[in-house]
Amino acid sequence: MVRLIALYSQPEDPAAFDAHYRDVHAPIVRSYPNLLGMRLTKANGVGGRPAAYYLMAEMSFATRADLDEALASEPGRESGRDLRNFAQAGVTLFVADDADATDG
Amino acid sequence: MVRLIALYSQPEDPAAFDAHYRDVHAPIVRSYPNLLGMRLTKANGVGGRPAAYYLMAEMSFATRADLDEALASEPGRESGRDLRNFAQAGVTLFVADDADATDG
Repeated sequence: MVRLIALYSQPEDPAAFDAHYRDVHAPIVRSYPNLLGMRLTKANGVGGRPAAYYLMAEMSFATRADLDEALASEPGRESGRDLRNFAQAGVTLFVADDADATDG
Repeated sequence: MVRLIALYSQPEDPAAFDAHYRDVHAPIVRSYPNLLGMRLTKANGVGGRPAAYYLMAEMSFATRADLDEALASEPGRESGRDLRNFAQAGVTLFVADDADATDG
């Protein structure tokens, strides 16, 4: 299992961000080929400091090849283009290859 | 379930980072009170760009109160002090409250 992790920076207008994510962006992502699951979690601060990010999106795939195929698909490219419509504050992407994960 | 998520920036010496994490830091974290689980995953880049982070550590707790209690405990404070010994490149912390999570 691999996860594409998207960390969205704090938007200027969280309500507008949430509405666009829910109504436009999430449906595009849900149409990715090979997508096994999607989890959206709001980030909270710790140690008295605000969270570095606003929202974490975790998209699961069976393999890295499946993930790359999803991003290269038309929905994958469309989701990339859609970022400019709501993620002006920035988004940080990386891939967590849970095949390499350990329990510490 | 809540997760304390630590995103470690790329270290100058990954082998030294890995050794310190494995031999010193992870044992401290494993001694947190209330800890339900710990998952360590190396981050990989996507779209031809290097990953913004080197390592993601996810520490699970039943509740936010359990998490806060862990961080305020002696192991919690010790793990914070230990960061200066291996995480000079930086670490980004936030809490993902999976009780708020949705499937998109």
